[in-house]
Amino acid sequence: MKVDDIETPAVVIDEAVARRNIEQYQAHCNQHGLSLRPHIKTHKLPHFAKAQIAAGAVGITCQKLSEAEVMADHGLDDILITYNILGSAKLARLRRLAERLGKVCVTADNPVVIEGLSAAFADAPRALPVMVECDSGAHRCGVASPEEAVTLAQAISSSPGLAFAGLMTYPAVGGGAQVQAFMAEAKRLLAAVGLDCPVVSSGGSPDMWTSGEVEGVTEYRIGTYIYNDRSLVQHGVRSWEDCALTVLATVVSLPATGRAIIDAGSKTLTSDLIGLRGYGQVLGHDDVEVSALSEEHGILAWAGGKKLHVGQRIHIVPNHACVVSNMVDFVWIKSEAGRVEKFTVAARGGIT
Amino acid sequence: MKVDDIETPAVVIDEAVARRNIEQYQAHCNQHGLSLRPHIKTHKLPHFAKAQIAAGAVGITCQKLSEAEVMADHGLDDILITYNILGSAKLARLRRLAERLGKVCVTADNPVVIEGLSAAFADAPRALPVMVECDSGAHRCGVASPEEAVTLAQAISSSPGLAFAGLMTYPAVGGGAQVQAFMAEAKRLLAAVGLDCPVVSSGGSPDMWTSGEVEGVTEYRIGTYIYNDRSLVQHGVRSWEDCALTVLATVVSLPATGRAIIDAGSKTLTSDLIGLRGYGQVLGHDDVEVSALSEEHGILAWAGGKKLHVGQRIHIVPNHACVVSNMVDFVWIKSEAGRVEKFTVAARGGIT
Repeated sequence: MKVDDIETPAVVIDEAVARRNIEQYQAHCNQHGLSLRPHIKTHKLPHFAKAQIAAGAVGITCQKLSEAEVMADHGLDDILITYNILGSAKLARLRRLAERLGKVCVTADNPVVIEGLSAAFADAPRALPVMVECDSGAHRCGVASPEEAVTLAQAISSSPGLAFAGLMTYPAVGGGAQVQAFMAEAKRLLAAVGLDCPVVSSGGSPDMWTSGEVEGVTEYRIGTYIYNDRSLVQHGVRSWEDCALTVLATVVSLPATGRAIIDAGSKTLTSDLIGLRGYGQVLGHDDVEVSALSEEHGILAWAGGKKLHVGQRIHIVPNHACVVSNMVDFVWIKSEAGRVEKFTVAARGGIT
Repeated sequence: MKVDDIETPAVVIDEAVARRNIEQYQAHCNQHGLSLRPHIKTHKLPHFAKAQIAAGAVGITCQKLSEAEVMADHGLDDILITYNILGSAKLARLRRLAERLGKVCVTADNPVVIEGLSAAFADAPRALPVMVECDSGAHRCGVASPEEAVTLAQAISSSPGLAFAGLMTYPAVGGGAQVQAFMAEAKRLLAAVGLDCPVVSSGGSPDMWTSGEVEGVTEYRIGTYIYNDRSLVQHGVRSWEDCALTVLATVVSLPATGRAIIDAGSKTLTSDLIGLRGYGQVLGHDDVEVSALSEEHGILAWAGGKKLHVGQRIHIVPNHACVVSNMVDFVWIKSEAGRVEKFTVAARGGIT
């Protein structure tokens, strides 16, 4: 089957581009002595998670237990879940997962989470590695100061069934200096209380090429680099040729001059703007804006005369690749020979 | 099982509220002599599509063929697909669907679509009913003038395998007067060329209570009314008590004063703002804003002191109910007795 045979809208992945992206960033991490731990949220496919490990990644990152369970079902064996896991049902699932796999590690940023983890693992055959999540400036989760990080590290270290595994942060864009300062101070304080800090994990795609400049970071978590997207092109860190994921859509109406309607709406491209204008880049038509979306309609707008025709198929680079993967039950992976094959997005919709 | 036993994040539907919404709006349509044709995009559940028919709806509306196929598999027998269907694969699917069901009707707003439909149905046992989509002011799909509507109606009427079935529009909010004027003129022109117009179909939730005031409209398509959402409350047409769908989430972190993190992000609540500030209404906490979302984190913000605790569960009315249904593989439907039951969102992700 070829791309021309795919019913639209559809998500198409160029395998050669994706593999080149994997190799390039693995080489970058190798050069800078960083362990690469890709976030599978971008692709949600065991196929590519295995390719990332084969290229040299130390393990994978998942945001939710349900993503990790799917990856474990497909043979992934070293998983960091960068999330506060709470509640008896989830803790029981985490315990079962930890007993199946070579390594499962989680993060915590507050004592309630640590108490829950300890209660679930107190009688486990192996201690659960737990990292402390630190807020180095992104103001999402994370303890606000190195002092609080040490307090939690001590709590983990002294909790039955748990082992302190290091420090983790999801930094603000351009926040390398803040990460370095926070982590240096936290490590100094940890050493003063006799605690080792085996891993300092940072991440984020916009700062992918400066990840090696932040002293003290040992591990980098990154998701979007495998596909890339309009956001990363706008950040100036990747080009359109590096974008492996496109949404294939068909023009279904040309109701007025300067307006076309495509069959991909927010159910495919999503409403994520992440600071951009418009909902994607129409490849080969730089003057055409994806100006609005409803669920099943995308509105293309341009200044001036006739352009496009009803039935025409276009490729759109979405603003944010990760969220697009989550919208579809399957993607089409295109080989270098131009054949396409359907892959189920196995970890799609894994919210718990 | 009770709501307290559900793992979060989760989508919970209050069945009594949903059924009351169905009954109330059916009564409104009955009173105004309007045929009600609910759009199943809001719930994507055969369970509720059947309840809508049982209450008196004349049939259902789907936006894409794949949604219609799922509903047909569950016994729904009268389906309007309000979309330009193009391409040989989709046309073959439409033909198969039409041969299975009592009635399938589609819309078209351009000659290319009409030619494709005719080619697919020229030798069909029954003519395919096709409505002309008109742009009465929303500027999405639709012919721009009554004259163009008549030209297309004539093209449908003279095309082998097709039958002209009426006029359809998706109006702008508050666009009742425009609908009335467009349709009156189009019907006058249709009559002048000897064409009957059996159905004039309009729709839209924000104008739900004024639907009966637009002369000439015979059918109303509406989706959100079954669940309602923050957008409709802001429009002033429904209240929080009418919102049947909520996202149940857990506070996983309280990293700073005035900030909490919940386990529902854009993968559950979606990035749809549709003109609103914030990403949902936290029930019982009017002063708390859902200020930002990443995929698996929702950020709650408020002015002032301590509030909420880690592990606390909250209910959020999303900005837009329809897109939330599309994010989850299943919803929990809560009975009046307080028990919850899992329902697969059968038509979720139907984009083609």
